[in-house]
Amino acid sequence: MRIDLNCDMGESFGRYRVGADEALMPFITSANIACGYHAGDPLVMDRTVRLAVEHGVGVGAHPGFPDLMGFGRRQMQLSPEEVENYVLYQIGALAAFAKAAGTELAHVKPHGALYNMAAKDAELARAIVRGIARFSRELIVVCLAGSAMVEAAKEAGLRVAREGFADRAYNPDGTLRSRRLPGALIEDPQVAAERAIRMVREGVVVAHTGEEIPLRVDTICVHGDTPTAVEIAKTIRRELEAAGIEVAPMARFV
Amino acid sequence: MRIDLNCDMGESFGRYRVGADEALMPFITSANIACGYHAGDPLVMDRTVRLAVEHGVGVGAHPGFPDLMGFGRRQMQLSPEEVENYVLYQIGALAAFAKAAGTELAHVKPHGALYNMAAKDAELARAIVRGIARFSRELIVVCLAGSAMVEAAKEAGLRVAREGFADRAYNPDGTLRSRRLPGALIEDPQVAAERAIRMVREGVVVAHTGEEIPLRVDTICVHGDTPTAVEIAKTIRRELEAAGIEVAPMARFV
Amino acid sequence: MRIDLNCDMGESFGRYRVGADEALMPFITSANIACGYHAGDPLVMDRTVRLAVEHGVGVGAHPGFPDLMGFGRRQMQLSPEEVENYVLYQIGALAAFAKAAGTELAHVKPHGALYNMAAKDAELARAIVRGIARFSRELIVVCLAGSAMVEAAKEAGLRVAREGFADRAYNPDGTLRSRRLPGALIEDPQVAAERAIRMVREGVVVAHTGEEIPLRVDTICVHGDTPTAVEIAKTIRRELEAAGIEVAPMARFV
Amino acid sequence: MRIDLNCDMGESFGRYRVGADEALMPFITSANIACGYHAGDPLVMDRTVRLAVEHGVGVGAHPGFPDLMGFGRRQMQLSPEEVENYVLYQIGALAAFAKAAGTELAHVKPHGALYNMAAKDAELARAIVRGIARFSRELIVVCLAGSAMVEAAKEAGLRVAREGFADRAYNPDGTLRSRRLPGALIEDPQVAAERAIRMVREGVVVAHTGEEIPLRVDTICVHGDTPTAVEIAKTIRRELEAAGIEVAPMARFV
Repeated sequence: MRIDLNCDMGESFGRYRVGADEALMPFITSANIACGYHAGDPLVMDRTVRLAVEHGVGVGAHPGFPDLMGFGRRQMQLSPEEVENYVLYQIGALAAFAKAAGTELAHVKPHGALYNMAAKDAELARAIVRGIARFSRELIVVCLAGSAMVEAAKEAGLRVAREGFADRAYNPDGTLRSRRLPGALIEDPQVAAERAIRMVREGVVVAHTGEEIPLRVDTICVHGDTPTAVEIAKTIRRELEAAGIEVAPMARFV
Repeated sequence: MRIDLNCDMGESFGRYRVGADEALMPFITSANIACGYHAGDPLVMDRTVRLAVEHGVGVGAHPGFPDLMGFGRRQMQLSPEEVENYVLYQIGALAAFAKAAGTELAHVKPHGALYNMAAKDAELARAIVRGIARFSRELIVVCLAGSAMVEAAKEAGLRVAREGFADRAYNPDGTLRSRRLPGALIEDPQVAAERAIRMVREGVVVAHTGEEIPLRVDTICVHGDTPTAVEIAKTIRRELEAAGIEVAPMARFV
Repeated sequence: MRIDLNCDMGESFGRYRVGADEALMPFITSANIACGYHAGDPLVMDRTVRLAVEHGVGVGAHPGFPDLMGFGRRQMQLSPEEVENYVLYQIGALAAFAKAAGTELAHVKPHGALYNMAAKDAELARAIVRGIARFSRELIVVCLAGSAMVEAAKEAGLRVAREGFADRAYNPDGTLRSRRLPGALIEDPQVAAERAIRMVREGVVVAHTGEEIPLRVDTICVHGDTPTAVEIAKTIRRELEAAGIEVAPMARFV
Repeated sequence: MRIDLNCDMGESFGRYRVGADEALMPFITSANIACGYHAGDPLVMDRTVRLAVEHGVGVGAHPGFPDLMGFGRRQMQLSPEEVENYVLYQIGALAAFAKAAGTELAHVKPHGALYNMAAKDAELARAIVRGIARFSRELIVVCLAGSAMVEAAKEAGLRVAREGFADRAYNPDGTLRSRRLPGALIEDPQVAAERAIRMVREGVVVAHTGEEIPLRVDTICVHGDTPTAVEIAKTIRRELEAAGIEVAPMARFV
C-alpha cells in the first residue's frame, strides 16, 4: 500500500508571495511547480525546484493558461495546437531548472481551468498529452481519477498517476463538488486524513450525498493555499504513515 | 577558412508577423530563435525550430529582456540573479522544442539591449554565462567580438563564437556605430559581402573613419528585419562560397 | 438615408505593425481603437487617435480580452465583474488620448471574442454595458444588429448603433457565417458595396442560402486586415455616396 | 500649518494580495493608486478608488514602468515619447474608475524606479509632466522635494506637492539614503512622527550624518508595505494632529 502526496508550489510572482512552500515541502512527495504562465517566475521556479530537491520531493511541471491576471483559473478556448505547444513550452522552461539542480522532471500536472477542462474534454486532453509526450515519454501524467485525461494519457502510452482529493467533497459520479457550493471543502484535518486512508486502503470515497463510490488513486492532492494547509498536510502524512501506508514519490511505483 | 552565418528568427508573436524566416533560412547556418520574452510564442518557436531543422541550420536560443512592448531593445536594470534565471528559463523553453524536433540547442545569443549591455558590463556578462552554463556546458556562446561577453564565456570555460556584422558600420575601437547615426547600416549587398569576405580571410574590417581594424570572427550576423535582408543574406552566402570560404554551422568548428 | 462606416484601428503593438490605418482612415467615419489589452499600446493609441481626429473620424474604444497572444479572438470565461471593470479600464485609457487630442470618445465596440460572445450571452452583454455606462451615458454602443448586446444597451438606456457587415456572409437567422466555412468572406468590392447599399436603402441582406433577411443597420463594418481592405472601403464609400446615401459619423444621427 | 499624508495603494494583482489598504485608509489623506502597469488590475483599481472615496481620501494615479515582474522597481530606458504616453495611458485608466465613483483625480505620483529616475533626470521628468498635463492641467504633481521633477512641473505651470519621507533616512544633500544601506528605514513610529512634525513646523529634517537640512514639504509619504505600516501611519497622524497641524488632502492647499 503506497501513495504519493502532491501539492501545487511555486505560485509566487515577482514581489507577490502566495503559498507556504517551505512549510509544506517536508510533508509531500511530489511538487507541481508553476511555470510562468498562470503563476511563477524564473526566480521562484529556481528556488522552488531547489527546495523540492533538498527534501527529496519529486519535481513536476504545473502548466497553465497564459492568464496571470486570472491565475489560470478562467477557461480559455485555445486550439489544440496552442495547448500542445503552451504545455511543451512550460515543461521545457521548468525542466531547465530541474536540470540545473541536478534532477529531472518526474511528472506533469495541468493547472486550474486547464486541468478541469481536460478532465472532460477528450480533444483538449489529447493535446496536453501530446505536449507532454513530445518532451519525454518518461513523464508521468497526473490526472483526475476517472477523467478523460486518464484515457488520453493511456491511449498515448504514458504512465498515469490517478489523483484524488482528501479535502474536497465528491459528487456521486466521482467528480468534485464545485467550490461555489457549501461543503465543497473539508476543513477538518482529521476527517481529510481519514478520507485519504480509505482511498488508499479500500479504494473508496464517500460522496457528499453519503454513498460510497469507488476511487483508485496513486496520488493525493494537498492544497497549499488554504489557511489550514500545513496542518492538513501534516495530519494526512502522519495518519497515512500511522496506518502503515508508505508515502513515496509517484515515480517509484506508478 | 570557415564561417557561420547567423540570423535572428522566430520573432513573430500571436497574430503579429515580422521577419522573413522562410526566405532567409536557406542562406544561413545558425538560427537565433526568440524564446517568448522579447518576442516569439510557443507556436512560432515550434514552427521556427522545425524550419531550421529542415534546412540543416543550427538551432540556438535568443533570450531577451521580458519586454515585449519594447521588443527587448530597451535597457532594463536587472539583478545578476534575475538575468541568470531569465536566461535559463528561456533556454529551457526553446530546448523543449528542439528536443521535440529531434535536435539539440547548439548555441545561445542574447538579444538586443541584453546583448549590447553584456558586451560592456562584465557582471551582467557573467550572469548570462552562468544561466547558459547551468543548462549545458556544451552550448556555444555567441558574443560580440572583443567584448566583455567573450571574456566571461572563456572564464567559465564555455566555447565562444565571436560575432561580426557585415552590414553594420564599425567605430575605430571595434564597437558598432550607433543605429541612430548616419551610415550605421550598409545597405548594398555587394559591399556587405565584401566586408564579410575580408573579415574571414584577413581578420579585418574597415571602420567608418577609414582605418582597418582587426576583427577575428566565427560567425557573421545577417539581419532579418530590413527590406533588403534576403538579398543581403543571399549575396553574402554566394560571395563567401565563391571566394572559397566554407559556410557551416558554428558547432562544427568552434 | 445615412450610414456610418466603422473600422477596427490601432491594432499594432510595439514593433509589430498590422492594418492599414493611414490608407483606410479617409474612407471611414468611425474608428474603433484598440486599448492595449488584445492589441495596441500607448504610442499606437496616441497616433491612431490623432489620425482619426485629422480625418474628422469619430473616435471609439475597442476593448477586448486581456489576451495579446490570442489577439482577443479566443473565448475567455470571465466573471461579469471582471468584464465590467476591464471594459471600464480600457475605455478610460483610450479616453485619455482622445482628451489629449481635443476630442471625446463617441462610441464603444467590443472586440473579437468579447463581441461575439456578448452577441449571444445576455449576462455578459449587460456587464459590458455597465462598464460603458459607468464611464459615460453619452457613449454609443456598437452592437451586432439583432443581438443580445442591442437588448442590453437599450435596457440600460444607452444609444445603440446596430452594425452590419458588407463583406461577410449571413446565415438565414441573421448571424454571421463562420469564418471557417467557405464563402464566409465576400472579397469582391463591388459585391460588398451593393450589399451595403441594400442594407441602408432596403434594410435587407441576402443570406448565403439565397433568402432575403431584414437587417436594419446604423453602421457598416469595414475590415482593415484583409489584403483588399483599402479597395473594399474605398469602393463601399464611393458607391454609397453615388447612391445618394450620406456617409457620416454615427454620433450625428444615432 | 497643514500637511497631506499620502500612501501607495491598490498594488494587489489578480489573486495576489499586498498592502494593508483597508487598515491604512483611515489615516491618510491622499491615495496613490497603481494603474495596471507595475501593479494593480481593474478590479483592484475599482475597489481601491471606492475605498478612498468612502474615507474622503484624495484619489491619485500612481503610474509605473510596464514591468509587473519587477514591480516597477527596475530602471528601464524608455524614450521620452514612450514615458509620456505610458503615463497618459495609466492616468486615463485610473481616471475612469474615479469618474465611475463620482470623483476626479487629484494628483499623480510616479512609482518606484520611474519616480527615482525622474528625480534626477530632467528630460524624463519633463516627459512625465507632459503626460500629466495632456490629461489635465489641474492635476497636482507629487515630486521628491528638491528634485528635477519639481522643476519640470513648475516649468510646465502645474501645481506641485513636494514630498518628504518620515520613515526614511536622508543624506546630507537631501536625497534619500539607499534602502540597501543600514539605517535607511526608520522603524520606530514615534521617531517617524517626530520627524514628520519637524518637517512641517520647521521645514527641516536631520540627515543620517546628524546635520539639519532644510526640507519644505506639502505631503508626507506613509509606506504601506512594511510590517509596521499601519502603526506608523496611525502614530504619525495622531502626533501631527496632537501638535496642532491640520492633516488634509493636498488639493485643499497646494
